[in-house]
Amino acid sequence: MDFTDRCTHTSLMNHILQAAGDDADLNGFGIKDLNIGNCSWVLSRMCTEFYRRPGQGEEIDVKTWVADVGKLMTTRNMIVFDGSGERIAVAVTQWAVINIDTRHAVDIRANVDYRGKTDDEPIPGDPPVRVPRIDSEPAATKKVQYSDIDFNRHMNAMKYIEWIIDNVPIDLIQADALKRIDINFLKEAVLGRQLSLHTIEDGIRRLCEIRAIESGDPLCRCALAFG
Amino acid sequence: MDFTDRCTHTSLMNHILQAAGDDADLNGFGIKDLNIGNCSWVLSRMCTEFYRRPGQGEEIDVKTWVADVGKLMTTRNMIVFDGSGERIAVAVTQWAVINIDTRHAVDIRANVDYRGKTDDEPIPGDPPVRVPRIDSEPAATKKVQYSDIDFNRHMNAMKYIEWIIDNVPIDLIQADALKRIDINFLKEAVLGRQLSLHTIEDGIRRLCEIRAIESGDPLCRCALAFG
Repeated sequence: MDFTDRCTHTSLMNHILQAAGDDADLNGFGIKDLNIGNCSWVLSRMCTEFYRRPGQGEEIDVKTWVADVGKLMTTRNMIVFDGSGERIAVAVTQWAVINIDTRHAVDIRANVDYRGKTDDEPIPGDPPVRVPRIDSEPAATKKVQYSDIDFNRHMNAMKYIEWIIDNVPIDLIQADALKRIDINFLKEAVLGRQLSLHTIEDGIRRLCEIRAIESGDPLCRCALAFG
Repeated sequence: MDFTDRCTHTSLMNHILQAAGDDADLNGFGIKDLNIGNCSWVLSRMCTEFYRRPGQGEEIDVKTWVADVGKLMTTRNMIVFDGSGERIAVAVTQWAVINIDTRHAVDIRANVDYRGKTDDEPIPGDPPVRVPRIDSEPAATKKVQYSDIDFNRHMNAMKYIEWIIDNVPIDLIQADALKRIDINFLKEAVLGRQLSLHTIEDGIRRLCEIRAIESGDPLCRCALAFG
């Protein structure tokens, strides 16, 4: 919960990704299944629309299904329902499969058996957009810390978003104005790496980019839409 | 989970405090009950001993009970069990009740009805110690951000600990050497406040202090014991 007594955006997105992982496990193509073939899932793009963030103790249900499977990218959709069956958030995610050693994308259909496991249900929101690169001075800097990293010692994807939202003016959060987040994940950040956050206003959107300071490489681009 | 595939110390402590809150609610003296009389709980000291941090998907049970009730301080104990009934962590916490407007401590026994709700079971570990003040240059600084704060716009107590553990040498975390944490909470930090973290080695303990940079006030003192 945040100070407005609503579930944070990042917490809700974490639940959405957890449901995706659980569903992939149930269908026999979770991370552990892919690991057997020395492959892994990589989240490439994600968008989430927030209609209402739930409060403390509220029960939510996450529905998720694989929508389509290309050679290099597959789409998984999610809808979050509250206890009365109302849609309170939707997400569209795009995933690649990589070889763990080469870190290169492999043919998804050659590595995952999707037979009978996709669904034609309409996409629940506009798909994630490509976020343009931006040029601006750093708005903030940080070092990748212990609490940021995953089992693979890379910064957790949702920690990028947490940092980005920490730098949104607090009155926009208080007014619950953040309605949509589009993210493009470009590169991973390892423990100890110094990062910079860049941000510009583009009409009603706020564009953000996280870079590795030493190399200058962009790691993540994000568009926040307010309403 | 952290990169070693164990539940983080702060996550386990969060579960412990959640269980405390749930138990107080069930007994009719939770935060909401106290709020009716314009009072609230304040965590003053906490110690936690970690015998084994659980892994992903493990079920844990938290047992908690009120051990004794003084005029200005009450003690609540916790034991964390794993699925086979083994103790994997214990905690001892000391709480005060404050008036929400004056922020001063009030007589606990005049505000909370404990009849029949305390337990004489032995304390599960050494009680939390008083951590001495320390003098050293800042090891790190940070600003209190949106993701740090609670419903009352104060930095969440466990966020102090998360920051402290982020500054422990990573090889000590990897070796799972952190076995006990004693914390003294002195003062709250509001959104936007600049904080400094000070730390010294004291034999096998690491002593830490978080200060508000502007006022110099100590906010939290902490002793980490390794083994």
